[in-house]
Amino acid sequence: MLQGAQFLGFGRSGQSNDTFSSFNPRTGQPTGYVFYRATIGECLCALELARSAFEQMWHVGSLERAAFLRAVADGLEKAKNALLQAIIMETALPPLRIQTELVRTQFQLTSFADLLEKDHWQELRYDPAQPERKPTPKPALYKMLVPVGPVVVFGAANFPLAYSVAGVDTAAAWAAGCPVIVKAHPAHPRVSEITAEVITQAALQTHMPEGIFSMLFDDGTQIAQFLVQHPYIKAGGFTGSLAGGMALYRLAQQRPDPIPFFAEMSSLNPVILLPKALQNRAETIAQQLTHSICNNMGQFCTKPGLLLAIDDNATAQFLEYLKGYISQVAAETMLNEGIYRNYLHCRNRAMEQQGVEILTVSDRKAHLEDQHTAIPTLLKITSEQFLKNPVFAHEIFGPCSIVVLCPKEAIIWQCLEELGGQLTCSIFGEPEELINCRDKIFTMMEKAGRLIFNGVPTGVEVSPAMQHGGPFPATTDSRFGSVGADAIRRFLRPVAFQNCPTDLLPLSLQNQAITTNQ
Amino acid sequence: MLQGAQFLGFGRSGQSNDTFSSFNPRTGQPTGYVFYRATIGECLCALELARSAFEQMWHVGSLERAAFLRAVADGLEKAKNALLQAIIMETALPPLRIQTELVRTQFQLTSFADLLEKDHWQELRYDPAQPERKPTPKPALYKMLVPVGPVVVFGAANFPLAYSVAGVDTAAAWAAGCPVIVKAHPAHPRVSEITAEVITQAALQTHMPEGIFSMLFDDGTQIAQFLVQHPYIKAGGFTGSLAGGMALYRLAQQRPDPIPFFAEMSSLNPVILLPKALQNRAETIAQQLTHSICNNMGQFCTKPGLLLAIDDNATAQFLEYLKGYISQVAAETMLNEGIYRNYLHCRNRAMEQQGVEILTVSDRKAHLEDQHTAIPTLLKITSEQFLKNPVFAHEIFGPCSIVVLCPKEAIIWQCLEELGGQLTCSIFGEPEELINCRDKIFTMMEKAGRLIFNGVPTGVEVSPAMQHGGPFPATTDSRFGSVGADAIRRFLRPVAFQNCPTDLLPLSLQNQAITTNQ
Repeated sequence: MLQGAQFLGFGRSGQSNDTFSSFNPRTGQPTGYVFYRATIGECLCALELARSAFEQMWHVGSLERAAFLRAVADGLEKAKNALLQAIIMETALPPLRIQTELVRTQFQLTSFADLLEKDHWQELRYDPAQPERKPTPKPALYKMLVPVGPVVVFGAANFPLAYSVAGVDTAAAWAAGCPVIVKAHPAHPRVSEITAEVITQAALQTHMPEGIFSMLFDDGTQIAQFLVQHPYIKAGGFTGSLAGGMALYRLAQQRPDPIPFFAEMSSLNPVILLPKALQNRAETIAQQLTHSICNNMGQFCTKPGLLLAIDDNATAQFLEYLKGYISQVAAETMLNEGIYRNYLHCRNRAMEQQGVEILTVSDRKAHLEDQHTAIPTLLKITSEQFLKNPVFAHEIFGPCSIVVLCPKEAIIWQCLEELGGQLTCSIFGEPEELINCRDKIFTMMEKAGRLIFNGVPTGVEVSPAMQHGGPFPATTDSRFGSVGADAIRRFLRPVAFQNCPTDLLPLSLQNQAITTNQ
Repeated sequence: MLQGAQFLGFGRSGQSNDTFSSFNPRTGQPTGYVFYRATIGECLCALELARSAFEQMWHVGSLERAAFLRAVADGLEKAKNALLQAIIMETALPPLRIQTELVRTQFQLTSFADLLEKDHWQELRYDPAQPERKPTPKPALYKMLVPVGPVVVFGAANFPLAYSVAGVDTAAAWAAGCPVIVKAHPAHPRVSEITAEVITQAALQTHMPEGIFSMLFDDGTQIAQFLVQHPYIKAGGFTGSLAGGMALYRLAQQRPDPIPFFAEMSSLNPVILLPKALQNRAETIAQQLTHSICNNMGQFCTKPGLLLAIDDNATAQFLEYLKGYISQVAAETMLNEGIYRNYLHCRNRAMEQQGVEILTVSDRKAHLEDQHTAIPTLLKITSEQFLKNPVFAHEIFGPCSIVVLCPKEAIIWQCLEELGGQLTCSIFGEPEELINCRDKIFTMMEKAGRLIFNGVPTGVEVSPAMQHGGPFPATTDSRFGSVGADAIRRFLRPVAFQNCPTDLLPLSLQNQAITTNQ
């Protein structure tokens, strides 16, 4: 086994002389693991394997794919210690969080396996023939969802398991019947490598076609751009920055044959704080928000980045609590140097704007020797400043949040209306003041994919009733989500079979007693 | 009432001094009906009305929207004679066809009404709270589909009712809860005007918010481009040419906030003719194909434009029959001068290519005095020519089809693989030879949205098991279709409600006994 080499189907390849290192963000030093930059030749090989696997996968039953997904989940369990060690080394995430994320990743894989063991995800439809119909006979019609084709996945830095190599995009694509080529995230290549080894073993064990999975290493943009534009690729999934997501999305759209490209990119996750809730529960809400803003150094796409409240005494008291709690949070190492530099840049830019008041900057380090530590920061501006300066509507990825003080409730809603699309919108309020906001539910809904009442946006449940997605620029397509079983729909398309001999129908249509269901 | 003026909500407006005429394609002469070109000011007014109607529509129940859809269907029935007269005048379509299309249009509207009277289209999901869960309590989660926002619709020339002002795109958007702005097709503006009057009356009768519908006249591209790029517009639907569809699709994607744009554009609808079927049923198949190629002068997006067969005696005999039948079809007036000129251009370009044999050109006119009559044409080439000349892979909209003679069956499949995405792919074969093609079902499925066995692609059933759509360039998004109730999905997005007080939940989530359904 060639450490640091590409995964091309069941084999490894390190054609290039060109390598890059993995880094430990705590020390800023190389980890000792080195990775070959994928060549275009290796890309083409992965693409050919995926193309050929796609056709073979059509003959692999849903139950067999489910077995593969379960084998990946089991394999991750066995690789737990190696993964834990690599994640700590490459991302500085705390062990407890990694364990939770591993469980979540396994749950995602097995949830899709559960889904595959039923049939409804294929949306089977049948209209019987009416040979006697006038003026023309009606032919029998069947419809089902089929996979779109090979999918390219770009994982996220902040979820090295749940949104990376064997994360939800990959699992959803496999569940749909699509081969996946993963471009390994350069901030956790060793974690990616261990995961890819697990996947390869699981694919071999469960007799999946070679090419159901390949993985390529690159710390630049060339391989990503090549993959997104290649005619064999029929869809893409991405989680990361607005700039990165949009660059790939634009390439996907500018192809001679545009493809769906699902990028989850940027969200402020506004939180509306109504006055009575702050009067009655200022301290509790401050505690909840501190955790939501600062946990894992705020490196969540659902971190609340904007707090909208009325400029009154209750809010002033609440801000005292919030300042107090946030100032107690120690600065810790961010996921990687790039994210750290970006945090500093975005936070500092916000701090330098006219009218910004710095409520607290907590620069006490958890571990003195650590590099690239994020400084939890709480800023305050007036709604007037917010409404005239678009800088405040940019996501600051990390433990920073901006309080916007509004002269009255109507201005809170005006601020919300000025925002682009969001993953979430939260509101804290007492029952009677929530009821008074009834007419504003529409506004919240128009802006976000998930509305949260008296709760914080972080801590995304993996469940069929979850929507993780939202209007642009939160994601590139608000009609789909990337958490829960419905995420499979991104990689499926309907096909109708008219007057088809039963023997030639896909097995799911043959085996089922399908009834017209609309 | 101001004839030829824009429909802005419930009012009419003819601000411009600039007008254009409606034409009778049979005579090439103006009909006497004149239309005001919409101004940007009128566009903005329609957009403001749609924006405001969108919020009001959120409070309009599904049953009330269903009543509106039924009122439109009823209104079309009452306007039947006026519509029939206008369609004959502006499109030269035969009366029987128009009557069938009217019934189909009404059926589409009432099908969406039927759908709205059930609840499953909203995909309601509910996960109950688990307050005792460790380490963190689980909040209650609800999910449902909500409308995306105001939609712009560009109707098709070839279906002045079923794919125009009150056609399936408009009906699906209304059903979803989206206001619609229609850009009236300049080839049938009087038909559009009568339809819009019906819609306005139905909206008033059923107390829909003003702005649920507006319609603008323009025979250029300015208004279309402006609408697609306006931030209030959240999705678009288009049926027409590849050039027109792609121009608008690109604009929709290049917006700062890209929107879904569903364009149905171009399809060759290949037909595979296996040898035993031609040996046994040459004449019947020739009759079926003649009708499918020439009916309504081949002006269907599902017209079979490419016939793939093995170069043998049975095919030679079949081609004699096909030539015979097509040569008996009289040339009739096409939908409009633009379509006529485009047909001539595309057909003549194909005829001029090296190696093309003209099997038949039927230039007998049905009515001697008619203008712009299409000439039914059957061309023949070898697979070698087909594979090296991309001109043959372009749609020729009108009564023309190209026979591709292949030395053996494998070459038929190779030709198919070279094609872009298609709405349909048909195959004629005897039971045993179809079974032998089992492995090729995958190839057909990859290329098309609907596979037809021993039948022709024209005559699209409106049913839940129909898929009318296909991989690019047949449409811009193969994951959706524009026939049948599933077409509503194009205009819906999911929203989750976390820990939401029951009183604040949307009514559908409150009223239902929802169970977890995954």
